[in-house]
Amino acid sequence: MVVVMQERASDEQVQKVIAKLVEMGFDVHRSTGALRTVLGAVGSSRNYDTALIEVLDGVQEVMRITEPYKLASRTFKPDNTVITIGDLRIGGDEVIVMAGPCSAENENQVEAAAAAVKRAGAKVLRGGAFKPRSSPYSFQGLGEEGLRMLRAAADRHTLKLVSEIMDISQLEMMDRYADILQVGARNMQNFHLLRELGRSKKPILLKRGISATIEEWLLSAEYILAGGNMNVMLCERGIRTFESYTRNTFDISAIPVVQKLSHLPVLADPSHGTGKRDKVAPMARAAVAAGCDGLLIEVHADPDHALSDGAQSLFPSQFDRLMAELRIIAPAIGRSICLEPVTKRGWGGSR
Amino acid sequence: MVVVMQERASDEQVQKVIAKLVEMGFDVHRSTGALRTVLGAVGSSRNYDTALIEVLDGVQEVMRITEPYKLASRTFKPDNTVITIGDLRIGGDEVIVMAGPCSAENENQVEAAAAAVKRAGAKVLRGGAFKPRSSPYSFQGLGEEGLRMLRAAADRHTLKLVSEIMDISQLEMMDRYADILQVGARNMQNFHLLRELGRSKKPILLKRGISATIEEWLLSAEYILAGGNMNVMLCERGIRTFESYTRNTFDISAIPVVQKLSHLPVLADPSHGTGKRDKVAPMARAAVAAGCDGLLIEVHADPDHALSDGAQSLFPSQFDRLMAELRIIAPAIGRSICLEPVTKRGWGGSR
Amino acid sequence: MVVVMQERASDEQVQKVIAKLVEMGFDVHRSTGALRTVLGAVGSSRNYDTALIEVLDGVQEVMRITEPYKLASRTFKPDNTVITIGDLRIGGDEVIVMAGPCSAENENQVEAAAAAVKRAGAKVLRGGAFKPRSSPYSFQGLGEEGLRMLRAAADRHTLKLVSEIMDISQLEMMDRYADILQVGARNMQNFHLLRELGRSKKPILLKRGISATIEEWLLSAEYILAGGNMNVMLCERGIRTFESYTRNTFDISAIPVVQKLSHLPVLADPSHGTGKRDKVAPMARAAVAAGCDGLLIEVHADPDHALSDGAQSLFPSQFDRLMAELRIIAPAIGRSICLEPVTKRGWGGSR
Amino acid sequence: MVVVMQERASDEQVQKVIAKLVEMGFDVHRSTGALRTVLGAVGSSRNYDTALIEVLDGVQEVMRITEPYKLASRTFKPDNTVITIGDLRIGGDEVIVMAGPCSAENENQVEAAAAAVKRAGAKVLRGGAFKPRSSPYSFQGLGEEGLRMLRAAADRHTLKLVSEIMDISQLEMMDRYADILQVGARNMQNFHLLRELGRSKKPILLKRGISATIEEWLLSAEYILAGGNMNVMLCERGIRTFESYTRNTFDISAIPVVQKLSHLPVLADPSHGTGKRDKVAPMARAAVAAGCDGLLIEVHADPDHALSDGAQSLFPSQFDRLMAELRIIAPAIGRSICLEPVTKRGWGGSR
Repeated sequence: MVVVMQERASDEQVQKVIAKLVEMGFDVHRSTGALRTVLGAVGSSRNYDTALIEVLDGVQEVMRITEPYKLASRTFKPDNTVITIGDLRIGGDEVIVMAGPCSAENENQVEAAAAAVKRAGAKVLRGGAFKPRSSPYSFQGLGEEGLRMLRAAADRHTLKLVSEIMDISQLEMMDRYADILQVGARNMQNFHLLRELGRSKKPILLKRGISATIEEWLLSAEYILAGGNMNVMLCERGIRTFESYTRNTFDISAIPVVQKLSHLPVLADPSHGTGKRDKVAPMARAAVAAGCDGLLIEVHADPDHALSDGAQSLFPSQFDRLMAELRIIAPAIGRSICLEPVTKRGWGGSR
Repeated sequence: MVVVMQERASDEQVQKVIAKLVEMGFDVHRSTGALRTVLGAVGSSRNYDTALIEVLDGVQEVMRITEPYKLASRTFKPDNTVITIGDLRIGGDEVIVMAGPCSAENENQVEAAAAAVKRAGAKVLRGGAFKPRSSPYSFQGLGEEGLRMLRAAADRHTLKLVSEIMDISQLEMMDRYADILQVGARNMQNFHLLRELGRSKKPILLKRGISATIEEWLLSAEYILAGGNMNVMLCERGIRTFESYTRNTFDISAIPVVQKLSHLPVLADPSHGTGKRDKVAPMARAAVAAGCDGLLIEVHADPDHALSDGAQSLFPSQFDRLMAELRIIAPAIGRSICLEPVTKRGWGGSR
Repeated sequence: MVVVMQERASDEQVQKVIAKLVEMGFDVHRSTGALRTVLGAVGSSRNYDTALIEVLDGVQEVMRITEPYKLASRTFKPDNTVITIGDLRIGGDEVIVMAGPCSAENENQVEAAAAAVKRAGAKVLRGGAFKPRSSPYSFQGLGEEGLRMLRAAADRHTLKLVSEIMDISQLEMMDRYADILQVGARNMQNFHLLRELGRSKKPILLKRGISATIEEWLLSAEYILAGGNMNVMLCERGIRTFESYTRNTFDISAIPVVQKLSHLPVLADPSHGTGKRDKVAPMARAAVAAGCDGLLIEVHADPDHALSDGAQSLFPSQFDRLMAELRIIAPAIGRSICLEPVTKRGWGGSR
Repeated sequence: MVVVMQERASDEQVQKVIAKLVEMGFDVHRSTGALRTVLGAVGSSRNYDTALIEVLDGVQEVMRITEPYKLASRTFKPDNTVITIGDLRIGGDEVIVMAGPCSAENENQVEAAAAAVKRAGAKVLRGGAFKPRSSPYSFQGLGEEGLRMLRAAADRHTLKLVSEIMDISQLEMMDRYADILQVGARNMQNFHLLRELGRSKKPILLKRGISATIEEWLLSAEYILAGGNMNVMLCERGIRTFESYTRNTFDISAIPVVQKLSHLPVLADPSHGTGKRDKVAPMARAAVAAGCDGLLIEVHADPDHALSDGAQSLFPSQFDRLMAELRIIAPAIGRSICLEPVTKRGWGGSR
């Protein structure tokens, strides 16, 4: 921590700050200049509150010099984390596409979406069984029955499955069905849940809260990592700004920023990031061009009749076209998408 | 819902929109002007997604004409809700002050704070036993032992007790100790928790999320109300903006805005709203001048050694002075604060 | 400037940073810890770009230790600035109310507003002659004819006059009519205009831009002060946030924040800060309770037919009532508002 | 305009609203439902203030049904605007890259940058002669001498020139040197300047203000278009949000949003949009992938010694590499970048 004293700070005030820093467990280096005194405080703890110093008399400003997170930082682990699930590698050379319906509605709808996304080159099926909805009067999901449908469809099409967990009480059930447990934006700071997931063996996909700073996002990842689960991937999905034309402002610059600060894979969800179908493809292309490690995209065989998020779900033909565009873009940054096109091996037929 | 078609929308496009609206359960009134067609859709449901219409061809804009919440609105209940807990009335003429430490740390600290806030005129003791912390390395609260201390101190000083619940699993325990259950900003959209609290008999204090719109805040209140618990009070505590000098921007204008939209009492928490001790008193005065129904204020007998939020906690003498200032301000808007000053009946009296 | 090196920074990287700092004119103090090196850079210039250091290899973070502004800071001038215009003192014990129509429309409208605001206790007439409008199709103001009407009405009622200057070309004309030159929010970073106003003898009222940080606001004041004009007053008028219910979020906490950082008087404009008539009075009361040095309030004898900003203008009777409320609130913080009510001495008396 | 009355609105209140709408020049259609009345107001003016209706008793909400801008909208002109300057076409199939130093510093620096950007495939030289700086103590630009240098370098390398105009007084001079006049973010709502540029024959590059909504941005374009100058291109350069890791949040989603609402070309400036050199290339790639019509990029032969914006300027070798990446990406969306690489025809050839 660096403490900058005011120009007119008295020696007594400086001494009081030093005493407080020592009490907090820091070694203090004092540097007195012509105009003002600056104190450098060095210690081993990450667990302190700079505001305690800020309120002391004579203090002008206090600055941290360590990130408040540790396990999530590139300082701690310089090499990229690659998460492996069977033959799937997230964070490697291939950009992994996870796609499917917002929520499972019935057997046919899940099967149609799974077939479509597999055919186009997705590696992971996405789909919700429990839906967090702003309004108590909206569709809330099928629960375990939905999970069963999603698992069966994923197996039929040799896809992995990612699905959102909303409460600790669902953990055991989710564990039986999903390959990746997703933490939604509204739960990014549900610390009870994060702590529990730290004890899970399953990889976690942690979405950024709509008003979370990048530091807070990495601190939430730290909760999971500190519990022993090192398989955390991050997912940008839009932040709240003054601009109201789009539901959120999809913060693509967060992708290179996080990649510099952390070794964890970073994905992007342009469906929730924009909320409008015709903006999904441009933003998916942009995210890949910016260097993301994967995408989450909502695809529905009949979006007009989806029970949730229909307006931001792609038609299968739109998804096919997007995947073709992404295959052109990825090599620009030395990445690939769906290296072994399934069409050559006959999955899902004659595209 | 009002649907505005584009100027160049074809009749076929208009017909498709009408068909979709009818399918969604609306009666549709078509109004064709020189330049464009406007469709009025009337129905009884609040449970629909305007985005489903927005994505149709030829549609320029879609606007709701009903608030998505119902029980929380003044349209539903024109008169102010007054929540009574024993002889305490929240939402009436008196501005209710709830004060105390951020978290319970030990018997002495809790007792000192309770005595101080009672003496100055507070009616409710505030204090946390479970702390939601951004960092996994910070103090996490004393748990039930903290609740016990808070309850005992509240009883000794004839104060009511408000404390934060963080997870459904704590509900039964919290119920035994607290008079008011607080839902923190990070949990404002924890819908599992809100639904459960809708079945509780205890009044709920629902804080606004730091990036929640007023509409989302009222929708979260709706979750609780829809469950049958009508005793919900709202609490503004600062929103996230680009300004970084203060931790949050304390949105005082939310107070009159909510009072116009809803019948529920609105409180303000200037301690979390600003994060800095020297800004608490100006913002507390401002909130009362703007018309809030109550305040939540952090007071600690020794803030410099508080285990959490010390930098935003008032010293008892600062709290005394603030209460004196508030007693001058409240009458400007026909309110009172602590009508029968306890000082006239001896410190910490038998009230 | 404090430069924090990365944990793994090489000595060569450290040396390169030191060399760059020396080249920029700083003395450098190196402090090497177990984990990382921190460099303190001390110099006399305020004119440097920390980003030049941030991009060097091995640098983790760079922090300023001086505010980038000087003349505007309390470090430079600890005592409050009081601006005097005749017998008017802005920044002293009295809270100064400036009120009147958004823009001058005709003789009768200006006279009616001036009479109403004088009667209620305002000391300064506000009114625009040139209107900055987002749309090129809106009413743009009466120009010099409007200024003449405003000046005449101010003189008839012994009021001072504040009016907005929009371009350097208007300076000579504005100088002949107004007592205070207002710089609007959109012009807060029109540096050509600010520099010119630094050479003016007239006091300047500098509104905060809707997305300006407090630091940027003070830097804009610095432009005027650096030109030799020390009579600058600041005016908060709302910032842009995600909340769309109100046009802006009126940042009342900026008042105590600026008062700590700067010696300049701080006013508040709740009319533009909220954009809705029924929110003006609560926010005006809140601003005074928070400690502002003055208010700008739009009052119109017939708001329903105002050519601009009618929706946020108070009726004279609403303004009367607000002034009565403010007279109760001001003493809570040791201030007064219009100590000698003119009503006792007859309409538009000789003060 | 659509006016939604409150559920409990009286008939008298409805009549008063209708009278006001008629007075404002609208035809009114009344639609009375079981719960509430909705009024549709149709008229030819774009010049009205919905707030005038919002404040009437009994009104719940008022919604516009036309965009407040006209000439800038796709409704007015469905086909893309292509701006031609000699053989250069902005808004066509080719993505146009404009690159060069933040500001002209001396002959050698300008020449080195011009040669580098030409070689890599840029078509327009960018560079400033007058710099708007937040601090009065920063480098303010070389003025006309800088313009002369930039023009000479552009001519030597067969590049067009874009440079920023800051005040009406510079118009005649700028006109003599630049091919495109840039309006900076801080001047986006300098309506005096915009109106004057409406009478210019030169194409205008209008940057988005850091807190401007897309609607306000298009309204500012409308000021220029309404003056008769139809050659306006827009440029996204980052908006202000709560995230402080990057200087601004580069709003890439604004690109497809504007392309849907307007026929004007949309460019992107990742240098100012991120403020950090290592984020420029990822964001430039993302902007092209999202479909922008051009890029503005800061390139400096020796960024470490640039007098302004050095930290966000690319080295020539970084710019070369970026251009190579963009040539891979552009075809994904049917665009090209510098189809005939100059390298094949010798450096700085005769094109």
